[in-house]
Amino acid sequence: MTEFIPAGSRFVDLPSPFAMKRGGALHGARMAYETWGELNADGDNAILILTGLSPDAHAASNAGNPEPGWWEAMLGPGKPIDTDRWFVLCVNTLGSCKGSTGPASIDPATGTPYRLRFPDLSVEDCAVAAAHVLRSLGLERLACVIGNSMGGMVALSFLQQFPGIAHAHINISGAARALPFSIAIRSLQREAIRLDPNWNNGEYSDEAYPEAGMRMARKLGVITYRSALEWDGRFGRVRLDSDRRIGEDPFGLEFEVESYLEGHARRFVRRFDPNCYLYLSRSMDWFDLGESCHGTCEAGLAKLRVNRALAIGVHTDILFPLQQQQEIADGLLAGGTDARCLQLPSPQGHDAFLVDIARFGPAVRDFLDAL
Amino acid sequence: MTEFIPAGSRFVDLPSPFAMKRGGALHGARMAYETWGELNADGDNAILILTGLSPDAHAASNAGNPEPGWWEAMLGPGKPIDTDRWFVLCVNTLGSCKGSTGPASIDPATGTPYRLRFPDLSVEDCAVAAAHVLRSLGLERLACVIGNSMGGMVALSFLQQFPGIAHAHINISGAARALPFSIAIRSLQREAIRLDPNWNNGEYSDEAYPEAGMRMARKLGVITYRSALEWDGRFGRVRLDSDRRIGEDPFGLEFEVESYLEGHARRFVRRFDPNCYLYLSRSMDWFDLGESCHGTCEAGLAKLRVNRALAIGVHTDILFPLQQQQEIADGLLAGGTDARCLQLPSPQGHDAFLVDIARFGPAVRDFLDAL
Repeated sequence: MTEFIPAGSRFVDLPSPFAMKRGGALHGARMAYETWGELNADGDNAILILTGLSPDAHAASNAGNPEPGWWEAMLGPGKPIDTDRWFVLCVNTLGSCKGSTGPASIDPATGTPYRLRFPDLSVEDCAVAAAHVLRSLGLERLACVIGNSMGGMVALSFLQQFPGIAHAHINISGAARALPFSIAIRSLQREAIRLDPNWNNGEYSDEAYPEAGMRMARKLGVITYRSALEWDGRFGRVRLDSDRRIGEDPFGLEFEVESYLEGHARRFVRRFDPNCYLYLSRSMDWFDLGESCHGTCEAGLAKLRVNRALAIGVHTDILFPLQQQQEIADGLLAGGTDARCLQLPSPQGHDAFLVDIARFGPAVRDFLDAL
Repeated sequence: MTEFIPAGSRFVDLPSPFAMKRGGALHGARMAYETWGELNADGDNAILILTGLSPDAHAASNAGNPEPGWWEAMLGPGKPIDTDRWFVLCVNTLGSCKGSTGPASIDPATGTPYRLRFPDLSVEDCAVAAAHVLRSLGLERLACVIGNSMGGMVALSFLQQFPGIAHAHINISGAARALPFSIAIRSLQREAIRLDPNWNNGEYSDEAYPEAGMRMARKLGVITYRSALEWDGRFGRVRLDSDRRIGEDPFGLEFEVESYLEGHARRFVRRFDPNCYLYLSRSMDWFDLGESCHGTCEAGLAKLRVNRALAIGVHTDILFPLQQQQEIADGLLAGGTDARCLQLPSPQGHDAFLVDIARFGPAVRDFLDAL
């Protein structure tokens, strides 16, 4: 039961109690965030970054933490999100285990971790919590809100719940609602964790830890975050050297792609809390911008008040397919936003925004430069 | 440890010993098959059907078994594979648990099931075993060999190992080699089974059975056999009625798509032997027609001696993507076969050949009619 809080994290207290959309409330909850650049005198150069399921708020190196961040190539002086011009804020998602309050955090009512006593978490709660961070920092308005993957869902909810709070929006490989293929994948990931006897209804310890379930969930994640096209070129049918095979297991790792998945899984399983994973995963399944406003997804998008928007997606994304970014752009356009969808030929699938900076960098830079 | 042998199955003994490609041999092994229609006097109207991973030889109802088969709409009098004209033979794959000898069968040397003592199974072995069935029935030549999915791999190996044995070939949603995305999926399915403590290195019983692992493997299978496009229309974001939810599990089934996967898994887990699943699954990862002839895949295809061929694939197949059927057609064409690839817009993904008879039926009928 551990939280993984980057050095240099800063914190904002949420109002206490902090009511949750589906019932229950948090007491004494907090949000972790980091910043880059300086807010200008007019207070009109702020950008908020909302992350995918697992990243922390350390998007890039900064004074508080010189380690490279998960979007190091995108964010900094002279980079596509140019911190010489913009004041950039990245928040760790509510419900995470990387500084913001989540199921791995201590419940002040009991002095023990929440585990499954954490209230239902929704994307809408994540958006409200992010808005509280802005308020605490005295930010009334954003030049742009950028959301990646799950953060794209949070960003849409944020725009829905706080009309006019942002001048512009970049939605990267996001979606206005969860569709059944991605629900099926996430449901199976959660089942893998829950089936691990060590999960023990969320009452695991570092010693009896649902490592096998987390490994399965992460491998399935990585399979759906990348693309067959990328892997054909990257791995083909290359075998492992015999000394990299594991033991005498007759069904053990044999192909390079299997070793790649194993490596990804090993790096992840002890660095992300399983209960937090379950809560964040399920919040995505529940998300539908239309349901949130008792209408269709299209109507929900058309009601958002934002002046300019760019949705970016890639052809090889099977988890948040390109049609979903097109839907976002079309819906915003129908509501009067100057919106468009940029379809990139990146081979890396859903994760392309993390690695294909050659394509995503200029797209983000050009949009921000024109603001 | 059970075999699931359809009523009316017929059997052919394999030569004993039956040497396996990767080492070891089977003793007293047999193959299950079924037939439809009559062999004509010239013996030139025989069609062989090679199946996907899990089906038995009961492709359609016949005199021995009036129950509908897994390809009932495709095979019979007046149907696309017209048994008024063709003598049709379907074999259960070597290594399966549905009549042909596999890991669930009794090893005559010990009087107990082979389990993991079954020798390594390769696609090439499956092809040789199928050829023995033909020989035993006195068939020297086929009008056509049809292979679906894994059966498409077996068919290519069959054509490679028995040059000139078939006049024509239909390869449906098959592949000339396994690529890393499908290897990753199958590797994860096998890991789910092997991680189930009840798998017990293959030494499970009906009482202590790796049900959870099989359920995970099957759900992942179904996710990759169908398509996101189909599910968007079929399930959308429909919830289960509250009385169809399971218990009080806070992470239990909620969406219709989750219930669909659960139903598929429940029907499967006790109807297919887990060790057989592992062996058949791994044989696909190993398959590469090029490696089999110490060359490239393209060269392997170009060397096949078959006069006419049709590869059929669908745009929504993520497991055996359309490029792989195009590769088969291109490779055969390069070797002088009158071959083409038919790309169908079926929404059902890899499984389309089982359900989209409206598209697959005419395609198969037209090709066979012209022979």
